[in-house]
Amino acid sequence: MRFPLVASVALLLACPSVGQVAPTPSLVPMPASVQEASGELSLDRNFSVALTGPNDPILERGIHRFIEQLSHETGLGFTNARAVSGNATLLIHTDQATDKVQKFGTDESYALSVTASRVNLSAPNPLGILHGLETVLQLVKVNSKGFFIPEVTIHDQPRFPWRGLLIDVGRHFIPLDVLKRNLDAMAAVKMNVLHWHLYDNEGFRIESKRFPKLQAEGSDGQYYSQDEIREFIAYAHDRGIRIVPEFEMPGHSRSMFVGYPELASGPGPYRMEPGATDAAMDPTSEGTYKFIDKFMDEMTKLFPDEYVHIGGDEVNGHEWDANPNIQRFMHAHGMKSNQDLQAYFNQRVQTILSKHHKIMIGWDEVLHPDLPKTVVVQSWRGQQSLATAAQQGYRGILSFGYYLDLMWPASRHYAVDPMSGQAASLNEQDKKRILGGESCMWSEWVTPENIDSRVWPRNAAIAERLWSPAEVQDSASMYARLDRLSRRLQWLGLHHKSALGPGLERMSDSQEVTPLRTLAEVVEPVKDYQRMENLDRSKTIWDFRAPLVRLVDIARPESDQARQFRNAVQAYLASGEKNRAAADGIRKTLALWRDNDMKLRPFIDQSFLTQELGPLSADLSLLGSAGLFALDYLDRGAQSPAAWRSQQLAMTESAASPKADLLLVIVEPVRQLIEASAMSTPVDGTAR
Amino acid sequence: MRFPLVASVALLLACPSVGQVAPTPSLVPMPASVQEASGELSLDRNFSVALTGPNDPILERGIHRFIEQLSHETGLGFTNARAVSGNATLLIHTDQATDKVQKFGTDESYALSVTASRVNLSAPNPLGILHGLETVLQLVKVNSKGFFIPEVTIHDQPRFPWRGLLIDVGRHFIPLDVLKRNLDAMAAVKMNVLHWHLYDNEGFRIESKRFPKLQAEGSDGQYYSQDEIREFIAYAHDRGIRIVPEFEMPGHSRSMFVGYPELASGPGPYRMEPGATDAAMDPTSEGTYKFIDKFMDEMTKLFPDEYVHIGGDEVNGHEWDANPNIQRFMHAHGMKSNQDLQAYFNQRVQTILSKHHKIMIGWDEVLHPDLPKTVVVQSWRGQQSLATAAQQGYRGILSFGYYLDLMWPASRHYAVDPMSGQAASLNEQDKKRILGGESCMWSEWVTPENIDSRVWPRNAAIAERLWSPAEVQDSASMYARLDRLSRRLQWLGLHHKSALGPGLERMSDSQEVTPLRTLAEVVEPVKDYQRMENLDRSKTIWDFRAPLVRLVDIARPESDQARQFRNAVQAYLASGEKNRAAADGIRKTLALWRDNDMKLRPFIDQSFLTQELGPLSADLSLLGSAGLFALDYLDRGAQSPAAWRSQQLAMTESAASPKADLLLVIVEPVRQLIEASAMSTPVDGTAR
Repeated sequence: MRFPLVASVALLLACPSVGQVAPTPSLVPMPASVQEASGELSLDRNFSVALTGPNDPILERGIHRFIEQLSHETGLGFTNARAVSGNATLLIHTDQATDKVQKFGTDESYALSVTASRVNLSAPNPLGILHGLETVLQLVKVNSKGFFIPEVTIHDQPRFPWRGLLIDVGRHFIPLDVLKRNLDAMAAVKMNVLHWHLYDNEGFRIESKRFPKLQAEGSDGQYYSQDEIREFIAYAHDRGIRIVPEFEMPGHSRSMFVGYPELASGPGPYRMEPGATDAAMDPTSEGTYKFIDKFMDEMTKLFPDEYVHIGGDEVNGHEWDANPNIQRFMHAHGMKSNQDLQAYFNQRVQTILSKHHKIMIGWDEVLHPDLPKTVVVQSWRGQQSLATAAQQGYRGILSFGYYLDLMWPASRHYAVDPMSGQAASLNEQDKKRILGGESCMWSEWVTPENIDSRVWPRNAAIAERLWSPAEVQDSASMYARLDRLSRRLQWLGLHHKSALGPGLERMSDSQEVTPLRTLAEVVEPVKDYQRMENLDRSKTIWDFRAPLVRLVDIARPESDQARQFRNAVQAYLASGEKNRAAADGIRKTLALWRDNDMKLRPFIDQSFLTQELGPLSADLSLLGSAGLFALDYLDRGAQSPAAWRSQQLAMTESAASPKADLLLVIVEPVRQLIEASAMSTPVDGTAR
Repeated sequence: MRFPLVASVALLLACPSVGQVAPTPSLVPMPASVQEASGELSLDRNFSVALTGPNDPILERGIHRFIEQLSHETGLGFTNARAVSGNATLLIHTDQATDKVQKFGTDESYALSVTASRVNLSAPNPLGILHGLETVLQLVKVNSKGFFIPEVTIHDQPRFPWRGLLIDVGRHFIPLDVLKRNLDAMAAVKMNVLHWHLYDNEGFRIESKRFPKLQAEGSDGQYYSQDEIREFIAYAHDRGIRIVPEFEMPGHSRSMFVGYPELASGPGPYRMEPGATDAAMDPTSEGTYKFIDKFMDEMTKLFPDEYVHIGGDEVNGHEWDANPNIQRFMHAHGMKSNQDLQAYFNQRVQTILSKHHKIMIGWDEVLHPDLPKTVVVQSWRGQQSLATAAQQGYRGILSFGYYLDLMWPASRHYAVDPMSGQAASLNEQDKKRILGGESCMWSEWVTPENIDSRVWPRNAAIAERLWSPAEVQDSASMYARLDRLSRRLQWLGLHHKSALGPGLERMSDSQEVTPLRTLAEVVEPVKDYQRMENLDRSKTIWDFRAPLVRLVDIARPESDQARQFRNAVQAYLASGEKNRAAADGIRKTLALWRDNDMKLRPFIDQSFLTQELGPLSADLSLLGSAGLFALDYLDRGAQSPAAWRSQQLAMTESAASPKADLLLVIVEPVRQLIEASAMSTPVDGTAR
């Protein structure tokens, strides 16, 4: 009989034991002020919603979505919940109607009170109502009597007015349905800006009717039509989210030069091909500015937001250096460096944008005293450059520390505060110039399939940092609430949890994905830019067209299992009592890892996608085994032999090095167990 | 330290061990003729597709979808795969263009050959090409070199020309996006008819511009606009699927009478309310036929298919009996029974449909010698009524045995053959009148959330029955192929696998769903109409508006885990050798079940949705425990005491009774273990 018996570390570790529940209220982001009470409002089919204030179709649609979502999450069909009477369960009031174009800096506060019979939600502006409705959805819980909303009084407003997510659709095209569900998730955590990085060297993604070769020759056919963009902007507007478009120039824009090589500084031709590029616009040609003027004329009509991002980062200047005309121009105008040339370019572009009634945003590099103070600087370099800009009178937003593509844990992003570092010592007036922040989802390694898992749930930790009071900092509370939120995001259609299974099944074309999943759940993609650097080292060119279906592409950026194991080991090592029960949990997990390689091995060579995982799988087994031995010493109160320890510690060092662009993120707690076994005490903690 | 350690039977049993792979080729439905060879065609970015034959936008879109799907499933971006050259990897040829309206009985055959360098796909009609492309997608596999298509020659055509799925959107509204993904899945298994049961007593779901009170008063606001319907029909047409609308009359149509009570036989008024109804149209009123004529005039223009279903089932006649005018009419026309009256009604309706150039279909009850032979009979009563109809010259389709709402295992549906029973002894001419079959998804207990899991993957077994040669009958092969297909359906966006997790999380509002999942994966909803009968017994009325979020609503209709455990126990009991290894697998599973109640118990009373599961959870524990004892006796070759056995068998009887509308479907194999322990032999099999 063939009868498989394997256990999964996913299920061993994914669930906290009884009693370990999320802090109440389990809200992300945590509101500015919360007062809880002990009663509750029961939810049943009679639940109804009434709205007083000006007639507002956007708010009506928001209430409709709220009712649908509440129906979906509870199974109660509130099809007739929209009431006109003041006797409704949920009474909503706002004095204003939604602005036709959402303005930066609108009051987003709201007040929410839940009693046993009534919910009151009021806000100066419909944006606050939308935020409050998301809070109500997050408050819903279940008990032995049914679904309910606990009694609570909340006064809430954001700490920063600019809370954005950048999504790069240049390197990899992301279809609108995928972007829409990400907007839904952004609304759920009260983010209010989608910074749409609409093209880059690798692809131009907007339809231009004036310059149709932009999308026709600058993409693989994957771009958004203007009708689609208008519909998408309306979708975002319905959810209280501004769409800020980025038209990157003068660099990061090779895709524009494929159809319009005359814009570029080099001789061309330019092609859609893998590898780096020096391509940059020619800032000395009047034709360039004529093009930008016409292009912006078209684009600023398409995108209603007052702000337009012009990129402006990472121009290496090689094309400028190599072009004698440009060199002559610089000399004639007394420009000493490429920075001067780019400042000139930015000024010209700023003048054009100003003519089209837009405010310019650019990356750090645009900062130059010649630019007017209306310009907003987005810092990818750190709080320091943000503070410097603020002192010079420029407003800024922080993205340093919020790069989701670097694969950092949520806690590390969470610890980054726009007002920390040099910004903390700014005076009050300068501080106000720091508008908030934006997480960035650069898409070199991102596809429609894996983007949800790259953005969520980690992005919610950044959303909380930008919304909640600065004092909200407890990382354990954040993780507990993030976990509940992450499950709720599934109801909004996000694939961040569900994509892993099919991804693993594709790798093996086999039903037997359990050992593969066990491995997948304790690895994380390498951090920072190491994946790209690994490519360089082996002299392979990065090819944006390459398939992204390896384990590194589907493994989650942050392993919940590893985090829970790490916490478990730390608690075990710190605790004087109950050690045996704690050790038992750790032991079973380690045994699972030790035995996993044996189960995975027979499959691993059957697929080109699993072949590269052999060394990782072997390391996991060694770590499990070493951890078990260490635990035995600890459990018996016996000191482990020094020779054994040094051998095992060498093994952990080897296991800590990345393989297949993945890190085994349980090395550190296993190392701790091994080191602790050097000074074991009996389990009753009587001696140390 | 709190450190959870639980294992899930899902993962213990969901995966067969190494070597247990699906039969090759793993296709559903199995083609009529397959010849395999040993070579393979490697898939890489150079893969391209060319089409020769008439210009055909529908086929172009089909090829586009194929390329997208192949890109998605392999990660290879075939964005430029559409080639015009005859040197393409996949050469497609057909002589015809797609019919503007898909005709019943079109040749759907195709021929497919895969060599190491080329795929040839040809078909007399584009429908065959669409089917062949689905076959190609199912053929794709992975090995150590990459993704590939194995060399194979296939000649394929359907056994029956009518292979349908009925979806009832009357009892519960199913949005079009959910229906669309079900169309995608139907196309994947080569089904060609969606029978759209568009309304019923509980809701009218189509916009009528002529009779707007139908949808306005006969629904809760959830219905399809005519534009949406047209778009949906085009979506189906693109996928080789005909949409056959059902306009149920004279019964099952209370929702029509809410707005138009004059159509009904009773005094009214009629309301959208829970409970049974006797409501039926008045067949004696000329106004009824005038309405039907106008309504059909509108609807037959909306739905282009040549066939229109008029329902005609389950008229209890109470309203006719109670209406003196109707009684007078029957007497005056010499009608002896309500059957005669309904036959008269059907004749009148048939005449109207005929005038609008449509062929009438109805359920068994419509069969009456006065009807013309063009009428098609759909049998929910069995092969016998189908055979009788065929003998009388009527064409028929089988639905008896294909009711997905009865929660049968796939194997039971699979065993039902339209040509079995009385149909088997029909002469050749009469046999040809049996057009095929239709599975039926009645939606009393079905919602947008759970419909995918109610239809899939079981419906694919029915699709195979209707497409593949009659000799394709091996249930084990079917299950192995179904399992692979079920995983592939996730790539089409089906939620049949992914909906369980969020459903369980809703029940408990807790991260700790693992023990709940362990229980959920070994239960199945009660079979046949027992859930409805349970309601009657307790004097509760069925309320179509009630929330469907209990475990019975989210548990899968067929437990893979139970099936695998059943197979494992049978193999263990039958095998003379290797018993110890086999027993070990069974033992771990039984221990998991035995210990699960202890893990679930602390949570179970925290939610009204889990409270009812206590007795089931206790039973699972007792079964695990009893099975372990029995296995010990078997393993030791010792006979179990008779008193213990009778006590345990009594326990299994109690555990076999439904609780919370659920069945613990592992009772039978545990009972087998207990009974086998009465005649144990040592494990080496030397004595018996």
